[in-house]
Amino acid sequence: MSTGPLRIVIVGGVAGGASAATRARRMNEQAEIVLLEKDEFVSFANCGMPYHIGGEIPDRAKLLVATADLLRKRFRLDVRTHSEVIQIDRASKVVSIRKWPDKSVYHLPYDKLILTPGASPIVPNLDGVGSTGVFALRNIADMDRIRSAVDALTGTQRKAIVIGAGFIGLEMAEQLAARNFDVAIVELQAHVLPPMDAEMVVPLQEELNRENVRTYFGSGLSRILHDKGQVVGVELENGARIDGHLVILGMGVRPNTKLAIEAGLEIGKTGGIATNRFQQTSDPDIYAAGDAAEYLCHPQNQQMRVPLAGPANRAGRLAGEHAATGKSAEMSPVLGTAIVRVFHQTAAMTGLTVKAAKRAGIECRSVTVIAGQHAGYFPDAHPITLKIVYSPETGKVLGAQATGRDGVDKRIDVIATAMAFGATVRDLAGLDLAYAPPFGSAKDPIHQAAFTACNEMDGLGSMLDADADLSGWQVVDVRTPGEIAKAPITGVSKVSAIPVDDLRNRILELDPAKPTVICCGVGVRGHVAQRILLQRGFRNVVNLSGGATLRRRAVPEK
Amino acid sequence: MSTGPLRIVIVGGVAGGASAATRARRMNEQAEIVLLEKDEFVSFANCGMPYHIGGEIPDRAKLLVATADLLRKRFRLDVRTHSEVIQIDRASKVVSIRKWPDKSVYHLPYDKLILTPGASPIVPNLDGVGSTGVFALRNIADMDRIRSAVDALTGTQRKAIVIGAGFIGLEMAEQLAARNFDVAIVELQAHVLPPMDAEMVVPLQEELNRENVRTYFGSGLSRILHDKGQVVGVELENGARIDGHLVILGMGVRPNTKLAIEAGLEIGKTGGIATNRFQQTSDPDIYAAGDAAEYLCHPQNQQMRVPLAGPANRAGRLAGEHAATGKSAEMSPVLGTAIVRVFHQTAAMTGLTVKAAKRAGIECRSVTVIAGQHAGYFPDAHPITLKIVYSPETGKVLGAQATGRDGVDKRIDVIATAMAFGATVRDLAGLDLAYAPPFGSAKDPIHQAAFTACNEMDGLGSMLDADADLSGWQVVDVRTPGEIAKAPITGVSKVSAIPVDDLRNRILELDPAKPTVICCGVGVRGHVAQRILLQRGFRNVVNLSGGATLRRRAVPEK
Repeated sequence: MSTGPLRIVIVGGVAGGASAATRARRMNEQAEIVLLEKDEFVSFANCGMPYHIGGEIPDRAKLLVATADLLRKRFRLDVRTHSEVIQIDRASKVVSIRKWPDKSVYHLPYDKLILTPGASPIVPNLDGVGSTGVFALRNIADMDRIRSAVDALTGTQRKAIVIGAGFIGLEMAEQLAARNFDVAIVELQAHVLPPMDAEMVVPLQEELNRENVRTYFGSGLSRILHDKGQVVGVELENGARIDGHLVILGMGVRPNTKLAIEAGLEIGKTGGIATNRFQQTSDPDIYAAGDAAEYLCHPQNQQMRVPLAGPANRAGRLAGEHAATGKSAEMSPVLGTAIVRVFHQTAAMTGLTVKAAKRAGIECRSVTVIAGQHAGYFPDAHPITLKIVYSPETGKVLGAQATGRDGVDKRIDVIATAMAFGATVRDLAGLDLAYAPPFGSAKDPIHQAAFTACNEMDGLGSMLDADADLSGWQVVDVRTPGEIAKAPITGVSKVSAIPVDDLRNRILELDPAKPTVICCGVGVRGHVAQRILLQRGFRNVVNLSGGATLRRRAVPEK
Repeated sequence: MSTGPLRIVIVGGVAGGASAATRARRMNEQAEIVLLEKDEFVSFANCGMPYHIGGEIPDRAKLLVATADLLRKRFRLDVRTHSEVIQIDRASKVVSIRKWPDKSVYHLPYDKLILTPGASPIVPNLDGVGSTGVFALRNIADMDRIRSAVDALTGTQRKAIVIGAGFIGLEMAEQLAARNFDVAIVELQAHVLPPMDAEMVVPLQEELNRENVRTYFGSGLSRILHDKGQVVGVELENGARIDGHLVILGMGVRPNTKLAIEAGLEIGKTGGIATNRFQQTSDPDIYAAGDAAEYLCHPQNQQMRVPLAGPANRAGRLAGEHAATGKSAEMSPVLGTAIVRVFHQTAAMTGLTVKAAKRAGIECRSVTVIAGQHAGYFPDAHPITLKIVYSPETGKVLGAQATGRDGVDKRIDVIATAMAFGATVRDLAGLDLAYAPPFGSAKDPIHQAAFTACNEMDGLGSMLDADADLSGWQVVDVRTPGEIAKAPITGVSKVSAIPVDDLRNRILELDPAKPTVICCGVGVRGHVAQRILLQRGFRNVVNLSGGATLRRRAVPEK
């Protein structure tokens, strides 16, 4: 405990630490605020690092957003870099700090302590992992090293292997391809962007294929191959070998909780530092925020780690305010809203996927639409695939995912916003969104998805999941013969082809007693056909979600 | 009243009529559904018409979204074009229809009637308004005529005058400029896009200037000048004359309520057909939707006309469902969310402006931020100016406006979504929005604006409106000398220039007893300086909203 004015000590500048420090200063001009950072740079734009490696952000200085000098001058912060906190003595309220490179240790009393140590990339304990050319991307020094390696490799050496097809892995793959690397991605799970549902990421996979990025799924890394200390490739657990002089480990992160654990602070179920809504840990004089902390997450209503920059910044800001004044607003529940650009495609998500809901034992239904980001008659309309996950009982929105070329961020942000208020699909159906031809449609993809979900809830038309087993169903394809020839429904042996506009006239060709599934292009005409049959004596008629388009993603052609 | 199956008669195909008819069919396969349209085309994309005139949508057929043929075949609608409803006999439930061109009249009984007659452009009763080359844009025939005129005019004749700088006027100005017309806009109000607050539209005005579109404000049209029946210009009420061989009237619309009025249906305070939440008029067997109807509007909680396509489509859909089944969801309150692209700038709004709130006697505060649409370190960051209007007592969001190059639609849609749930600025501060460098910032402009509003509500820093009279204030400009030299604060005689980073050292240069206003670039450093002074004995310190940048828009340099 310090003896002078209130002393706030912040451990780690990047993951919310600088936000905490600057907010604390604005709240409390008298406090001593010490910002400790074990690395060279106290604050930098870590989300921008892949783009500097790839050259899209040419100027490295742009990533050094808040320099130590600025923080000292403008916010009168006591910034100490190369300063690693190695121990917290909670009883006497003192931290022990090791200075680098001389390793001398000194002690610093605190009144309030804010832990924002972030997370570290997972580095597997594999043969060859220490070879030259194997990198993880955590800080500016890593970035500089990777960029140097990228610059130095020439000719046939310009082959890179990215381990992990998550958000960072995909960004790195894109940026290395932009540097004319031959890029391969290795992913233990069965598809790119494993946090999302499988059929939702097919447009990303197709984009990677178009850009000649090779992908290897379903097998982990077995070892890293090297030649005189230089990486030359990897071997997978299934025996496959991939050449490459550059290996980027994008296998996720591990929260830097060692200090907190040793200090006896409570750790949550997902391995992050447990916090309350003011970011206080189990010791009310110690706060935590950022990738090492847990937040209250919705819609699960559980404490979880969410290693994303947005929550880190907001939580750091609140922690700084509370530490400096004893009060603040509460941290809002986190939905895990995330987004990634992959060449010309974008994927984004918020809340629960179907996969995650099932894993959590939460009952859910989903609806998927494929619709233009703006009016179809306006140039450059590109389809967005939007999936909304909701509670079948209440209609409450549990999550959403989207992929597409443009406008994906807007739809996910709108749904994340609605979810903050516990919105139902009925609420989404009534949203008053901005419409002019360059920006949207009078019936936005969000409306269309919500309409479909409401129809299902109101008994006006059930959807069948795109990956459903269609054996035993009377399958009716209501597209035109030309459309069907181009892209037949996959995973089905017998189909009755009756264009929707002929359905009333040719209804006798179908058996009203049989359970019937309608299929069209994306599901719109299917609903029309479904309503016709349901009102003309067919007892069980469902519409294939997302039509033949989504079906072909969920059940690929053989 | 019809004697066979339920007969639903719909008057007007465009403004929600086709939505009503197709939804009614999906709900009720047995009903007779008659869609009456007095023009040639029963349904078309009227929002796209300016873009066909300008050539951005080259293919005219693309605008004819739902043809009569499609509606007949797919939805079994009885589509009757060139059919004008001239009378409603509510007692016997019969409409009288005049067929064009032969003018014969016949009668059609109905069980449910849906009025979607839309609105007509206001055409002033002025000398010369009937001249060749003077147009309003309501339907496909108008569009074709304007496009022919645009194609036909050559050389020095390629001068156009757009009357009205509202949404349609701006779209037309942009598209005519794209056709190499010399374009002038005449607007009775004092600035472009009169529904928005004056300082918010300055970026649009600058864009028009850059694109050589001339603007004339504050004087109405006096007469239209013509030479042998061909328009050659206009004369304004202030005597100014503007040359032009093409005049587009974009002076707003008048609801087509004659039929409803003659039938004795209740008309609301804003002149539209009064409706309940199921779109029923004062006669429960008659519905109304689209530009001629009124909706419950938020946050005013009043019935109002909102001539926009989004509400028209949603209301039409609900009216069709209710007419066909006797039940439907309620129409959601309308916020009047609207958007327009003006060359490379976009402007959008939702809910109340400060101007509208004042007019309605609703107490409000506003906060304006100027911040990039995505991370500043990522290429092509462009500023969005975002203004949020809120209740000073409760923090409830009353409206928002934004202008900028990219990402304006997203911010307004997010705020419109939050408003649907009665959000406060505190709610906005906690939104979990998608962030990656190409799409946003860890602290989105919405967060920044909300933070500022919360600071003000919490007594942590009051804002001063950008257009405030600064006489009597101690004005402190905390920017660097270089910045100040480039763009000094406008509308002020004496300024103390102390860079924020020097403020603590040079604080004695200021008088703590004087009411003090801080000014920086956009308001961010201003808040830092404000907090320093407030905690160092200055009693009254405010921060100039939007800094010198917004000030220069609100109080132009002389």
